Amino acid sequence: MADQPDIAHMRRAVALASRGLGTTSPNPVVGCVILDADGEPAGEGFHEYAGGPHAEVNALRAAGERARGGTAYVTLEPCDHTGRTGPCSLALIEAGVARVVIAVDDPNPVASGGAERLRRQGIRVDTGVLTEAAEEGNAAWLTFVRRRRPYVTWKFAATLDGRSAAEDGTSKWITSAEARADVHRLRGEQDAILAGIGTVLADDPQLTVRPPRGRPPLRVVLDSEGRTPPGARVLDAAAPTLIAVAAGTEVAHADVVRLARTPDGIDLDGLLAELYRRQVVSLLVEGGPVVAGSFLRAGLVDRVVGYLAPALLGSGAAALGPAGVTTITDTHRLIFHEISPIGPDLRFIARPAPPKETDVHRNR
Amino acid sequence: MADQPDIAHMRRAVALASRGLGTTSPNPVVGCVILDADGEPAGEGFHEYAGGPHAEVNALRAAGERARGGTAYVTLEPCDHTGRTGPCSLALIEAGVARVVIAVDDPNPVASGGAERLRRQGIRVDTGVLTEAAEEGNAAWLTFVRRRRPYVTWKFAATLDGRSAAEDGTSKWITSAEARADVHRLRGEQDAILAGIGTVLADDPQLTVRPPRGRPPLRVVLDSEGRTPPGARVLDAAAPTLIAVAAGTEVAHADVVRLARTPDGIDLDGLLAELYRRQVVSLLVEGGPVVAGSFLRAGLVDRVVGYLAPALLGSGAAALGPAGVTTITDTHRLIFHEISPIGPDLRFIARPAPPKETDVHRNR
Ligand SMILES: NC(=O)c1ccc[n+]([C@@H]2O[C@H](COP(=O)([O-])OP(=O)(O)OC[C@H]3O[C@@H](n4cnc5c(N)ncnc54)[C@H](OP(=O)(O)O)[C@@H]3O)[C@@H](O)[C@H]2O)c1
Ligand SMILES: NC(=O)c1ccc[n+]([C@@H]2O[C@H](COP(=O)([O-])OP(=O)(O)OC[C@H]3O[C@@H](n4cnc5c(N)ncnc54)[C@H](OP(=O)(O)O)[C@@H]3O)[C@@H](O)[C@H]2O)c1
Repeated sequence: MADQPDIAHMRRAVALASRGLGTTSPNPVVGCVILDADGEPAGEGFHEYAGGPHAEVNALRAAGERARGGTAYVTLEPCDHTGRTGPCSLALIEAGVARVVIAVDDPNPVASGGAERLRRQGIRVDTGVLTEAAEEGNAAWLTFVRRRRPYVTWKFAATLDGRSAAEDGTSKWITSAEARADVHRLRGEQDAILAGIGTVLADDPQLTVRPPRGRPPLRVVLDSEGRTPPGARVLDAAAPTLIAVAAGTEVAHADVVRLARTPDGIDLDGLLAELYRRQVVSLLVEGGPVVAGSFLRAGLVDRVVGYLAPALLGSGAAALGPAGVTTITDTHRLIFHEISPIGPDLRFIARPAPPKETDVHRNR
Repeated sequence: MADQPDIAHMRRAVALASRGLGTTSPNPVVGCVILDADGEPAGEGFHEYAGGPHAEVNALRAAGERARGGTAYVTLEPCDHTGRTGPCSLALIEAGVARVVIAVDDPNPVASGGAERLRRQGIRVDTGVLTEAAEEGNAAWLTFVRRRRPYVTWKFAATLDGRSAAEDGTSKWITSAEARADVHRLRGEQDAILAGIGTVLADDPQLTVRPPRGRPPLRVVLDSEGRTPPGARVLDAAAPTLIAVAAGTEVAHADVVRLARTPDGIDLDGLLAELYRRQVVSLLVEGGPVVAGSFLRAGLVDRVVGYLAPALLGSGAAALGPAGVTTITDTHRLIFHEISPIGPDLRFIARPAPPKETDVHRNR
């Protein structure tokens, strides 16, 4: 057995893990590759859906007796607790693997301890292998566990000059059919989709995944005064809907959460805490501009997905409303993670830039 | 000799031609590849600078006697007139080439006729080979000759939400040092650079190429009332400057053009006609938003180069002002030609989309 873990196997495990995106919530995505005692691939697996077998169990099943004396590459520390399935640490011990290579330590206090138990059984454990890529793949779940709130993606569509409607309010269609299909793919990966009452009243969006794919995401409307019309499409039977209103507001809707009112509208921290309680791991904020500005100002955007159409308007509604920036040094700085063509349009994925050293100094 | 022209040689000629970008104005860029009688590469060349030898002459010089009985691939129809250099058609005839392959017919009535003369001498001439790519490479010059006005590029820098300054007017720096260096490269390819008086008063830009490269582009200020301050950097000694004022306006500046006043400001067709007279083949419009909106509205933008910083402002000045669009179907539609990272930023190059068939019908 080579002494250094082979990163290629972990890369494969990360790729396997990603196949579970959208179906494992509130669990993480996890991938696992098993090598036999000679270092030959013997089996692989991933966590396919919440309640289903964990990645290690699937991979061990595929490897069978060949796992004995072998090595397991797993993207997340094997769990050590008995949930809907038995602890994976035990399964690995029983299968007789000699070594376990781990990308990311389990941040979940309930499930962690797997590496510890393996070591106590004399199994060699390596950690910190390809951690960044594996964390990347589990970004939503890690945010959920570490920050006790959903991972928030703000999605918008606009022209190259940042507008989402023409002067007369028309906006159909700025982006292409391909981009709109991609939005549905993105929605399909989310546990919840949020819009402000402004968007509900202006566009009457349905906020569903088309074609439907698994459990439909929860729809959330930010609506202090409970103005969502009873006939709004967001209230149809296609998916559950939560209306977030200000404390004291009465609404004729089954699922309502009452939250504090702040100068910027409904308290977003309170909303995210409620969604955390409901095990919403990932939340897609679909606008409008006022809501997007609030999330940005509150520092609650983990990822921005923008669809830019090759078009110029020069006037009309801006895609983003006031976001708490008055001078250039306070700009919300991002880092491009991906830029790709989607049909005739451009899609970018960006994340908040880590604070600059100068900013850190300034905050002291 | 193979009967079909070999596109690979023309591709090479197009690549050679592009090396002349920025130094051949008001001439086109041209590339030439010569094969000997056996079809082996014998020489290549391009038009390097205005007044210098044409591409064919450079390539024939490199090929020497091997050109006899050979083939010339040339991106533009060889000229047939005696300008600062003799006609290229004659040079090819004297060198004894047997065949000439041409990408783009010369649209210039003064220079055309080269193919005709070659044919009369019994030389085989093929035209229309890799025409699109070669036209692309000569887009500025072809626009200049065909439309009798400069090729207009609008360049802007903005955040992902289309803003070019924060609420308090600060804008240094939205884009990166890499993007700003790329702007200087772009400027270096232009014959003239234009800004509106709004930008001159707000930013006092110098509008020069840094580091300097060849003849500096002419600076042009759109300034109906002649408000450009005598101490403005755009009037310094680094480059010549033309101030475009409304008819009847007096200004203490050496180079002034007086043009008709329209509801949208100075008559842009008149300005471009003046620049055509001055042999300005390419014009870079650097803003501001009001000027950019005017050029777009007038249908006078041939290319848009945008630098988008991974940043969000949510408020502040828009990069593009009113551009004559009130409803979504009138959007200025473009087609992405190139999308690339420039340092941490994104640069796109886009061109107006050809009118849709429905629009054509509507116009009948
Ligand atoms: N470009 C795009 O991708 C995109 C996406 C979606 C929508 N749009 C466009 O956006 C327009 C509507 O946007 P909008 O900005 O007027 O409305 P909006 O952002 O959809 O909703 C804003 C409203 O939500 C309520 N709200 C409650 N709590 C809030 C909080 N914490 N932060 C922010 N808002 C809160 C407020 O109304 P109450 O005080 O009544 O609660 C507020 O006025 C439509 O024209 C639509 O077409 C564009
Ligand atoms: N994002 C970017 O890349 C970028 C680039 C440059 C500037 N900017 C910003 O833009 C701001 C200034 O822009 P601005 O929009 O106020 O001014 P501008 O576009 O630079 O200049 C507009 C002025 O030019 C004159 N003009 C004359 N003929 C015109 C015509 N046919 N069309 C349009 N304008 C004509 C008019 O003033 P008269 O009536 O007096 O002639 C008009 O008000 C500054 O803050 C600057 O920082 C941004």
